[in-house]
Amino acid sequence: MQAKFPSESLTVLTDLVLPSETNPLNNLFGGELLARMDRAASIAARRHSRRITVTASVNHVAFNRAIPLGSVVTVEAKVSRAFSSSMEIYIDVWIEDRESGIKTKANEAIYTFVAVDETGRPVEVPQITPQTEEEKSRYDAALRRKQLSLVLAGKMNPQDATELKALFL
Amino acid sequence: MQAKFPSESLTVLTDLVLPSETNPLNNLFGGELLARMDRAASIAARRHSRRITVTASVNHVAFNRAIPLGSVVTVEAKVSRAFSSSMEIYIDVWIEDRESGIKTKANEAIYTFVAVDETGRPVEVPQITPQTEEEKSRYDAALRRKQLSLVLAGKMNPQDATELKALFL
Amino acid sequence: MQAKFPSESLTVLTDLVLPSETNPLNNLFGGELLARMDRAASIAARRHSRRITVTASVNHVAFNRAIPLGSVVTVEAKVSRAFSSSMEIYIDVWIEDRESGIKTKANEAIYTFVAVDETGRPVEVPQITPQTEEEKSRYDAALRRKQLSLVLAGKMNPQDATELKALFL
Amino acid sequence: MQAKFPSESLTVLTDLVLPSETNPLNNLFGGELLARMDRAASIAARRHSRRITVTASVNHVAFNRAIPLGSVVTVEAKVSRAFSSSMEIYIDVWIEDRESGIKTKANEAIYTFVAVDETGRPVEVPQITPQTEEEKSRYDAALRRKQLSLVLAGKMNPQDATELKALFL
Amino acid sequence: MQAKFPSESLTVLTDLVLPSETNPLNNLFGGELLARMDRAASIAARRHSRRITVTASVNHVAFNRAIPLGSVVTVEAKVSRAFSSSMEIYIDVWIEDRESGIKTKANEAIYTFVAVDETGRPVEVPQITPQTEEEKSRYDAALRRKQLSLVLAGKMNPQDATELKALFL
Amino acid sequence: MQAKFPSESLTVLTDLVLPSETNPLNNLFGGELLARMDRAASIAARRHSRRITVTASVNHVAFNRAIPLGSVVTVEAKVSRAFSSSMEIYIDVWIEDRESGIKTKANEAIYTFVAVDETGRPVEVPQITPQTEEEKSRYDAALRRKQLSLVLAGKMNPQDATELKALFL
Repeated sequence: MQAKFPSESLTVLTDLVLPSETNPLNNLFGGELLARMDRAASIAARRHSRRITVTASVNHVAFNRAIPLGSVVTVEAKVSRAFSSSMEIYIDVWIEDRESGIKTKANEAIYTFVAVDETGRPVEVPQITPQTEEEKSRYDAALRRKQLSLVLAGKMNPQDATELKALFL
Repeated sequence: MQAKFPSESLTVLTDLVLPSETNPLNNLFGGELLARMDRAASIAARRHSRRITVTASVNHVAFNRAIPLGSVVTVEAKVSRAFSSSMEIYIDVWIEDRESGIKTKANEAIYTFVAVDETGRPVEVPQITPQTEEEKSRYDAALRRKQLSLVLAGKMNPQDATELKALFL
Repeated sequence: MQAKFPSESLTVLTDLVLPSETNPLNNLFGGELLARMDRAASIAARRHSRRITVTASVNHVAFNRAIPLGSVVTVEAKVSRAFSSSMEIYIDVWIEDRESGIKTKANEAIYTFVAVDETGRPVEVPQITPQTEEEKSRYDAALRRKQLSLVLAGKMNPQDATELKALFL
Repeated sequence: MQAKFPSESLTVLTDLVLPSETNPLNNLFGGELLARMDRAASIAARRHSRRITVTASVNHVAFNRAIPLGSVVTVEAKVSRAFSSSMEIYIDVWIEDRESGIKTKANEAIYTFVAVDETGRPVEVPQITPQTEEEKSRYDAALRRKQLSLVLAGKMNPQDATELKALFL
Repeated sequence: MQAKFPSESLTVLTDLVLPSETNPLNNLFGGELLARMDRAASIAARRHSRRITVTASVNHVAFNRAIPLGSVVTVEAKVSRAFSSSMEIYIDVWIEDRESGIKTKANEAIYTFVAVDETGRPVEVPQITPQTEEEKSRYDAALRRKQLSLVLAGKMNPQDATELKALFL
Repeated sequence: MQAKFPSESLTVLTDLVLPSETNPLNNLFGGELLARMDRAASIAARRHSRRITVTASVNHVAFNRAIPLGSVVTVEAKVSRAFSSSMEIYIDVWIEDRESGIKTKANEAIYTFVAVDETGRPVEVPQITPQTEEEKSRYDAALRRKQLSLVLAGKMNPQDATELKALFL
């Protein structure tokens, strides 16, 4: 199975913040953004694997900036690294100022998807060959994140998480 | 006010066809696609004008291909021509086959938006300078469409629609 | 197959403009109105044909009047003319003032639907016999619109569109 | 304030049963039908009173017939009787067979609305003059229903509910 | 089939009032509350019967208190009495003040559900053994409500509704 | 400001999986579950703080079990630890088998919310006094998670994350 580039799975979902998606401060609900990112990420995973894909996990997501009602929000998702049947998807969220047109990063998030067949069983996916500097850095970090995820789930001994352990020594 | 390129307003909305958006044949409802194209087109109009924008009209839209449940649908909208306060938005809709990854054109549509101020009054917008062959051809045709629209609305005498009349002579 | 009257397919959909359907000016989104008209038109097409019906095209739609949040909107759809397996549906949209009760025409739109069997293949539909003056005038114009649609789709030579050509000569 | 006829408030809401509104047996959720009837009834109440109207109560509603996915459902609401600031709305729900076109009564329901001013305070509404036999019979029964409602709410002594008491003697 | 306690079917649905669910006074639509109560009640009926359940009827519901946008609403449903295949579900609706934390009863409602098999045919359900004073009082009243319902539907002669008749004599 | 118990913020949201919330395998979309957990967690945060609350971050969430269409899903959220103006919310998700009534843990998730005033500025919240063994264990782990979150955001030197560092040494 031939490796692919992250750019081959790039998925762009630009849409408005509608009144039904806002909280009492008139900003986009955190939960709505999580759902929108999930849809974009699932498409990126599908473009990479050409399989049915299901959400396996969501990495730490920080909501640094409020996104007001009426905003134009761009969710960009691409596969940052593939393991045997799972894919890490890196998501960047941008909002743009209507008057100046300036785009600002509003969020980053990392989801993991698994490719499955029609009966729901995991199937193998192509590997990733990162190209840009950013893609390479995200590719490298993906291994540390996978180890962290295994440690937190009690499926890996912290002592064996060599990549992660190095951070603290 | 400086003219802009169509590419500056390019808006991409890639999303799934969800179960709640399908008709009895399990295909995307025509009305749901019209609504999705309207949102993408309104963002393109806003990126061009940097103003609040409202739908003024929808040109003839043909639904040539059914779009099944679960499809990945990409709506691409960009401004094809600007008049004083109105903008014609050209929309291409693509679906992609999950297994082969091949993209097929599912629809084309043309919407017109008007830029308004906070009180709803029309305001002037930048003109368009087309770049690619396709953009030039759409730019030219936009004038015929505007004449047709004025004729159909009874606001222009067919005899004065010189661009359009030429088609039939 | 016996011809039917337009009134036999009349479909009335009166409903409120809900907060989740409004744009930043607090008016009904163009796209939401397009979706609502599509549902009403599909029912009119179904009442005429007694078949499954799918949207084939949307004719030029002009949004002349903003429809504010909380409005009562009445969408009235009826078949204006039938061809072999397709039906032109004429839609009138009314809003009414809460205090005076006066109804105002907010929009007109024309959709085309095709009747299909369970496998999606086109099937024949009854013809239309117009009764009122308005129905007769819409019936006649439907042929010109069909020719225009075929010309714009490149499926008819403008020289052969006799009804349409007459407009410009 | 001049009395009005029930027909002046007649509100017709014909719409499809969409996939997002169905239960595990693929029939319309009871709760969705209740919500749809509430919207139609609120419009009827508003047409009668020309005021903002809010739901005060729902009378006993029986769901006698399942309404399958894809059905065309017609909700017809009109004011059956008015009291000082409240209106009883009688709602008939019809479904129609696609192939035969035959309409069947699927439900009846009775809602009560109150007319209020912008601050939410009750305001007086016009009285009703019933015209047809059915309207007269519903008008008469409305008083018994109001007494029953007051008895059940503990606001009327059963002994004083003369209209109602007669039923059991 | 062993009798069950009402507490075994207790279902709690605490959720926010979202902007898309409000009327022009910015309060929760009556119809939305009816739909939410229907979902909670159907779960309570299912927990009691361990079967598919469908709404059979809604008893008189009074909307005594407006529920503003942004409120936290708690719907509590439990089976109050079971008959052969039907269950009466008693629903209490609470809202709580954000600053004081005080809970107030906003509504009570009574729905009836029927347990069915996969083909939609009614099946027998366990009986109810009430425990608390409130459960006992609701259990007793359920019989009067059932008689009232049969009388109103014309399926029982008022003279035979002994429990109900006693109220008026 | 007096400390509170986790049980004082316990929020239970039991609801059905509706057809509009499912993916191509007919299971609940990951994104929909994230949104539902966000609403329950925001209510728990609000009950603890009696303030407006906004999502600050989502910790690692693993989707271990598919949740099929029609399932009854119970989301239980309570505050596990409070810092100056932020609260960690621990969420347990359960599904129950209709026939056996057995409940199974489907997911755990951890969200962080911040309490704000009407202008969106952070305000102080009460501390937490854990009571049960599980609450104590979650309370202790919350500090490690906070350090991890600060390290990942580049706001804390890994060497200073004493609680976390201990894991790897």
